Amino acid sequence: MHDRRSFMKLGAGMAAGAMMPMVASAKCGDEPTQWDSEHEVIIIGSGFAGLAAAVEAMRKGAKDVVVFEKMGVYGGNSTLNAGQACFAGTELQKKLGIKDSAELMVKDQLKSGRGIASETLLRHSAELGPYIYQMTKDCGCVYRDHIITTGGTSATRSHQVVERSGSGFIRPMLDTARKMGVKTFIRHKFEHLIRDNSGRVIGIQVRKGYHFGHEESGELINVKAQRGVIIATGGFGYNINFRMAQDPTLTAEVGCTNAKGATGDGLIEMLAAGATPVHLAHIQSGPWASPDEGGFGYGAGFSLYNFPHSIAIDRNTGQRFMNEIADRKTRADLELQRRDKDGNPNPALLIAPKHEAQKDPSMHNVLKYNVAWEFDSVEAIANHFDVPLAPLKKQIDDWNGFVENGEDTQFGKRMDAGRGIKLTAPFIVQRLWPKVHYCQGGIQINTKAEVLAAKTGKPIPGLYAAGEVTGGIHGVSRLGGCSTPECMAFGVTAARSIMEA
Amino acid sequence: MHDRRSFMKLGAGMAAGAMMPMVASAKCGDEPTQWDSEHEVIIIGSGFAGLAAAVEAMRKGAKDVVVFEKMGVYGGNSTLNAGQACFAGTELQKKLGIKDSAELMVKDQLKSGRGIASETLLRHSAELGPYIYQMTKDCGCVYRDHIITTGGTSATRSHQVVERSGSGFIRPMLDTARKMGVKTFIRHKFEHLIRDNSGRVIGIQVRKGYHFGHEESGELINVKAQRGVIIATGGFGYNINFRMAQDPTLTAEVGCTNAKGATGDGLIEMLAAGATPVHLAHIQSGPWASPDEGGFGYGAGFSLYNFPHSIAIDRNTGQRFMNEIADRKTRADLELQRRDKDGNPNPALLIAPKHEAQKDPSMHNVLKYNVAWEFDSVEAIANHFDVPLAPLKKQIDDWNGFVENGEDTQFGKRMDAGRGIKLTAPFIVQRLWPKVHYCQGGIQINTKAEVLAAKTGKPIPGLYAAGEVTGGIHGVSRLGGCSTPECMAFGVTAARSIMEA
Repeated sequence: MHDRRSFMKLGAGMAAGAMMPMVASAKCGDEPTQWDSEHEVIIIGSGFAGLAAAVEAMRKGAKDVVVFEKMGVYGGNSTLNAGQACFAGTELQKKLGIKDSAELMVKDQLKSGRGIASETLLRHSAELGPYIYQMTKDCGCVYRDHIITTGGTSATRSHQVVERSGSGFIRPMLDTARKMGVKTFIRHKFEHLIRDNSGRVIGIQVRKGYHFGHEESGELINVKAQRGVIIATGGFGYNINFRMAQDPTLTAEVGCTNAKGATGDGLIEMLAAGATPVHLAHIQSGPWASPDEGGFGYGAGFSLYNFPHSIAIDRNTGQRFMNEIADRKTRADLELQRRDKDGNPNPALLIAPKHEAQKDPSMHNVLKYNVAWEFDSVEAIANHFDVPLAPLKKQIDDWNGFVENGEDTQFGKRMDAGRGIKLTAPFIVQRLWPKVHYCQGGIQINTKAEVLAAKTGKPIPGLYAAGEVTGGIHGVSRLGGCSTPECMAFGVTAARSIMEA
Repeated sequence: MHDRRSFMKLGAGMAAGAMMPMVASAKCGDEPTQWDSEHEVIIIGSGFAGLAAAVEAMRKGAKDVVVFEKMGVYGGNSTLNAGQACFAGTELQKKLGIKDSAELMVKDQLKSGRGIASETLLRHSAELGPYIYQMTKDCGCVYRDHIITTGGTSATRSHQVVERSGSGFIRPMLDTARKMGVKTFIRHKFEHLIRDNSGRVIGIQVRKGYHFGHEESGELINVKAQRGVIIATGGFGYNINFRMAQDPTLTAEVGCTNAKGATGDGLIEMLAAGATPVHLAHIQSGPWASPDEGGFGYGAGFSLYNFPHSIAIDRNTGQRFMNEIADRKTRADLELQRRDKDGNPNPALLIAPKHEAQKDPSMHNVLKYNVAWEFDSVEAIANHFDVPLAPLKKQIDDWNGFVENGEDTQFGKRMDAGRGIKLTAPFIVQRLWPKVHYCQGGIQINTKAEVLAAKTGKPIPGLYAAGEVTGGIHGVSRLGGCSTPECMAFGVTAARSIMEA
């Protein structure tokens, strides 16, 4: 009865303790008995949140900051998006004559959150927007002069980097962090939090030399944190088992825009450490995704650019069925209702005018990779996609009438500057079918980015989190372009809290 | 640097381990170093799930079963309801000529679950219905001959005990369990799971002599489980901090029908042990609650009995605003929209015909305790509650027309047997305002009632759960009368799994 004896041997306090983390790890028996290395600040994850935390920690005077990334490349899921970030009250907005404010941004996000978003966290994030905007520029990120309208917003505020990809943020921020002296390591996977007897997080166990998909690869090392640990490990969109526990319909067959590494390891480890789970059941699907390519792909960038001046058509009716710039959940839910008579998916058609679509480089890619196709007439579209011609013709005429009158009397889509564009041949057409994109849910934090314990509602000392691994901020549905700035805002906040603690 | 040294001293495996459970407990240092007692099966919680598990374990040949209850009385939140349980395919239904089936019940529940309910768990529960019905009768529970129609069901299937209260199930089941040899203890609060190095749950830590509200009261003892532990500790409706993390609008001011002990301790401890959280954000409010009394009260029983043949009126319009037997979420959401011009709550009025209401004893209570009032004319109602008279009169006439024609052309409410009742004076009127009632969310189990680990999706050896502490079964919204049978079905299932393991 070895268990029993080892149970007896241990001192009070160690007893049950020693046995409790076993579910979180079947490998504790292999853990080393000393610290293998030591750093002032440990950051786990090299996406928007992790890198913003690293840069801010150095700005606040940290001398020894380390970033661990489990994958073979830096950036995580943050590299896979259109490189957009909603900021309210920037110089660029003023220059373009756009009236906006943090309050207005919070108002838009609360609406999309459908009653359960966290107003305090949203406001904290929105108010840091201009600082984040400037910080990214200081890091060398280059923004386009054109600001984009994203769904569910009452002001045009989605700032986009010239690369039109998250990598346009990640690369300069990573370079800057390293220049400032931040140590970065790939293939280092976070396995466990290590706490002292008071419950304070004093370090982590990392799997060094980890190769994704080979969970036993590499060696386990213990890394001590002098000030604290920041978890910025992202969402669980690619963890089929965990996401299906929340929504049984999100099977392996359902598309996902995330990077393969979005498996929620950090989230699950924090839950096992007593963190508070929030809104895990609210998983967002991207309404701009194409069923004609894998992952995030090229279609997202194309549809994001074109939704404001294009129409989405139900192939059964030839009619519009939604406001093409409604919030993501509204659109994704409506798109998923487009079915053939047997109930099989019948993806809607986004019809864009080439004369406008060609102004964005995304058109080149969708045409090149067969994610969208060009048609020189309405007849050709109706014929190719088996759409009733007459109603489709009428719908396009109606839409052009809305453009002339400056009002969409069909779905109330905003028709202000930049949107008064007629839909005329030739057309570029992309199919629309949602893919799993973002996890609103995660572990609960406060406005200091401290992780709150489920049992007490109080912060877990030494533990901070930022980005998609956290939850409750956006509520039921997150607005487009609002994750990037939030990841960075709470990364910055976590760094400040650690340096001030 | 005491922490460091103790860290070094411990053997491999114990190291990080010893430090990890601290968040879950700041009191580990006080844990005893030996087993204070030992039982074959440990059940935590004495509600529907716990007692059904206890009885079934004895039926399956267990010799030493113990039930620990943290409060000063048995039954927990299970005692606070109308004593209804939806079973499909019982002798009583056949006797009353009601056509029903487990499949139909599952279909109703899937609809209410809005796409994320677990069909496999619902079917498992529904198919055990007739067994549970007979088991409760074997325990001495006495059912009324009248079966009740509850919201969102396509067949009349809510069986009710003569006491019209959950205590009508609890008392006979508790007596039966004890007669069978089950040991039961009050004021014993579950504090921690104790596991061996393989991760298997081998016992629990209990606070003996605990007094609710005094978290340090009593003494900590370690109880060994030979076969396993069944957690049946219920929901977290009364844990203001935890429920607000899921829905910031559920402040302390929001009413709650639960027993004070519904604080989610068992749920939170299992999460800290690596269990999978599911649907925590889906918290149900009871649409039958009265703002004129505290907790579950008398109004719920009255409105539950009368919804089928009564109408709910918006005081601003004098009109109906919902199908009075729609599912709970549909009704609660609509009731919460009844506001005065300043946006303050303006509870709807349930208007019932006395000639029918008096057939149920609940009328006596609501009148006695000023939860409802009698009026001899429509004018009197309009005058007392400041409702526009003309539309109210017309609404009542319209309703009586629906009754005559056997069809509700206004909201499509089912008008079959037992519902064709005219709304004539005198009237009994109750106000309606939702209260927090039930947590759809909890930890994930499979059809063996095994608790699944978030990290692996595999069962945590030796750990089982049943009842409101589990989640994912009902999805977004649970149907009325469907918790009681589900609690018992999975209690029974947990007992069978433990005895077969």
